[in-house]
Amino acid sequence: MMHGAGGELMNRLLAESILKNLTSRRIGEVELADLDDGASISLGDKEIVVSTDSYTISPVFFPGGDIGKLAACGTINDISVMGARPIALASAVILEEGFLTEDLEKIMHSMDASCREVGISVITGDTKVMQRNAIDKIVITTTGIGFADRGKVIKDSNLAVGDKIIVTGTIGDHGIALMSFREGFGFETTLQSDVAPLWPMIEGILKIGGITAMRDPTRGGLSAALNDWARKSSTGIVIDEESIPLRDEVIAASEMLGIDPLVVTNEGKAIIGVRPERAEEVLETIRATELGSKARIIGEVKDKYKGKVILNTAVGGKRIIEPPLGDPIPRIC
Amino acid sequence: MMHGAGGELMNRLLAESILKNLTSRRIGEVELADLDDGASISLGDKEIVVSTDSYTISPVFFPGGDIGKLAACGTINDISVMGARPIALASAVILEEGFLTEDLEKIMHSMDASCREVGISVITGDTKVMQRNAIDKIVITTTGIGFADRGKVIKDSNLAVGDKIIVTGTIGDHGIALMSFREGFGFETTLQSDVAPLWPMIEGILKIGGITAMRDPTRGGLSAALNDWARKSSTGIVIDEESIPLRDEVIAASEMLGIDPLVVTNEGKAIIGVRPERAEEVLETIRATELGSKARIIGEVKDKYKGKVILNTAVGGKRIIEPPLGDPIPRIC
Repeated sequence: MMHGAGGELMNRLLAESILKNLTSRRIGEVELADLDDGASISLGDKEIVVSTDSYTISPVFFPGGDIGKLAACGTINDISVMGARPIALASAVILEEGFLTEDLEKIMHSMDASCREVGISVITGDTKVMQRNAIDKIVITTTGIGFADRGKVIKDSNLAVGDKIIVTGTIGDHGIALMSFREGFGFETTLQSDVAPLWPMIEGILKIGGITAMRDPTRGGLSAALNDWARKSSTGIVIDEESIPLRDEVIAASEMLGIDPLVVTNEGKAIIGVRPERAEEVLETIRATELGSKARIIGEVKDKYKGKVILNTAVGGKRIIEPPLGDPIPRIC
Repeated sequence: MMHGAGGELMNRLLAESILKNLTSRRIGEVELADLDDGASISLGDKEIVVSTDSYTISPVFFPGGDIGKLAACGTINDISVMGARPIALASAVILEEGFLTEDLEKIMHSMDASCREVGISVITGDTKVMQRNAIDKIVITTTGIGFADRGKVIKDSNLAVGDKIIVTGTIGDHGIALMSFREGFGFETTLQSDVAPLWPMIEGILKIGGITAMRDPTRGGLSAALNDWARKSSTGIVIDEESIPLRDEVIAASEMLGIDPLVVTNEGKAIIGVRPERAEEVLETIRATELGSKARIIGEVKDKYKGKVILNTAVGGKRIIEPPLGDPIPRIC
């Protein structure tokens, strides 16, 4: 199970078994071998950005959303963080025989509502029913199509020394909310998944410019995303523990659960690398949106600590944030 | 289970629970509500054609292919029959915990080989591992991206009275081969799945013109595909039983199994509606390819029998070919 949880073991499985058997061809600014959130195809003066993801979550309905909302937002966000305007979604649904029709309808309705929030729709789909026990309830695979101007796709590897790192809101909400809900810790009324489409917020900051990298820290959380950036861009990233926005309930619940919120999934947050001279303007623009009201600059890109993420702790020490080996909470995204 | 097998029950599930909850917006020549093999997005003088499908098959390795070849070809073919050149594939793989790495590698290698046959590649992907018993072995969802010239996308509903119906080769090979293999009827040496990418054959005939509809008759077979055309175009389709190409082994095995080859899945065949004045040239061009050497004109579009498919039987009678309610052979595509 650790193989599927977005950490280092996963990377190894991917690299060894999948990538070495696939031919990576560059037909746009981002190709398979770049291992970004998606890839792109050049057409005229546009880049067609494509991203695909399979979604499975337990429970299917959770505080703050359901698998339909998750499957729409997750892929919309992967397209958005590559600097592309989402244009359309393709959706492939696999159902376990006996899955309740009324639940399917609710899920489709949620998916549609999230699409409508960013002005897009599901343009094509597929539905398969598998026999009981051949699939656990429902899996939805969404593929997003987005458009960016040629040369404007945002790649992880562009992060540069001096860039400020912005996080657009509180960290760990999705993962900790799901886990608390499952364990029945009594946070259900206040602690909800942050699942939301990021495009409306991102659209505003793309106009400002100076953005060098963008990512939605889903599986593996902030820790996996920052480590990936540090490795791909051959830089060091130093972040300040005290500046990381965390809800009180997330702190309390994660202590009870013994889980570090930095390694759990977020579904409505972005981390953004931005040139220092644009950082304040980008931050203010984000903070002016409802989704980004708690955005903070949490750190900076350095030319030392290459490939590593360093945390300046609240008590004045330093520690290396290792990429998570696996997700501490299975099946939450 | 009948809901997932590509027949009438499936259509009802789709219409009632999924489509009514999704907003269909037209951003290209084909939208969700058209229920074609995919949809399209207009960009400049091009149409970006998108199609998505989840693939599950038992066994994962079968005579003539494996799930990797199937997942590549199936989606390549859905793009191709819309008249678009395949450009790229996105692939989302869901594995059961404990799935053999060497099998995964073989599957990825097959997928890549089929992509290379049409000059494309997997440009982005996703991998999830689900716990044992939460998924049966492996499910692959592929999404294809293709380009067509604006105004040139081929839609099912364009079929017109007088059109000839061409089938590009023998019918029922995939479904009957799979079933024979499972039952151990001893046809394993000669009867193989027809799974293959159709683009090289289709590319040639698109240049001739006169093509009004195209489809790869997968789930529900020839019967489901022709019934769908008749309904969508409000025409009648009359086919001649004797002209339908069938392998001797398929005839023998389908008799033993008690299954009509007209309702089983094909994975390397197309049915094509073509204006009568172009029919011979299109047929000859198809027959000049290896994949299409057994192509035949099997019927014609009429202005009577609206919405129905009529079979002129070998013994001189007529019977209505009903759309299949479900697939007689579960999990073969």
